[in-house]
Amino acid sequence: MFVILVYDVGEKRVAKVLKTCRKYLNWVQNSVLEGEISLANYKKLKMELSQIIDKDEDSVIFYILRTTKYSERETLGIKKGGDDIII
Amino acid sequence: MFVILVYDVGEKRVAKVLKTCRKYLNWVQNSVLEGEISLANYKKLKMELSQIIDKDEDSVIFYILRTTKYSERETLGIKKGGDDIII
Repeated sequence: MFVILVYDVGEKRVAKVLKTCRKYLNWVQNSVLEGEISLANYKKLKMELSQIIDKDEDSVIFYILRTTKYSERETLGIKKGGDDIII
Repeated sequence: MFVILVYDVGEKRVAKVLKTCRKYLNWVQNSVLEGEISLANYKKLKMELSQIIDKDEDSVIFYILRTTKYSERETLGIKKGGDDIII
């Protein structure tokens, strides 16, 4: 499945959240990562993040696409992330 | 079509970009908006944003889902945006 992850977390936790996310997904833009991920790894990522974030202050949203057949991505301005993204 | 918009723009342009995006989409989280949008409005939004952003410095990414049938959204932590989001 393809996942788009966006996070809005407290300054103290940003580095750790980003480091954890980058183990599983590709950095695309400030607070945005994406990529193909297995269900098992998706569960691991969620579990690791839930041990890092402050559930009363932080927000992490996962958009889960079971197929990318009906979706596409368009960019205005510069492309910040790498080119190994396949949507 | 359903669109997820994420932006990473210079401080001076953030307010104008957000104000423009909110005319068409729902604010979900810092630099993230989403919602159903017609093709005509999507084109208008892109045109308005391209007149605001600095194409050499800023980045706006649109994830376009022609159907939300194969996608879902999960949140860790708090829900920052409104509840009128339908994915």
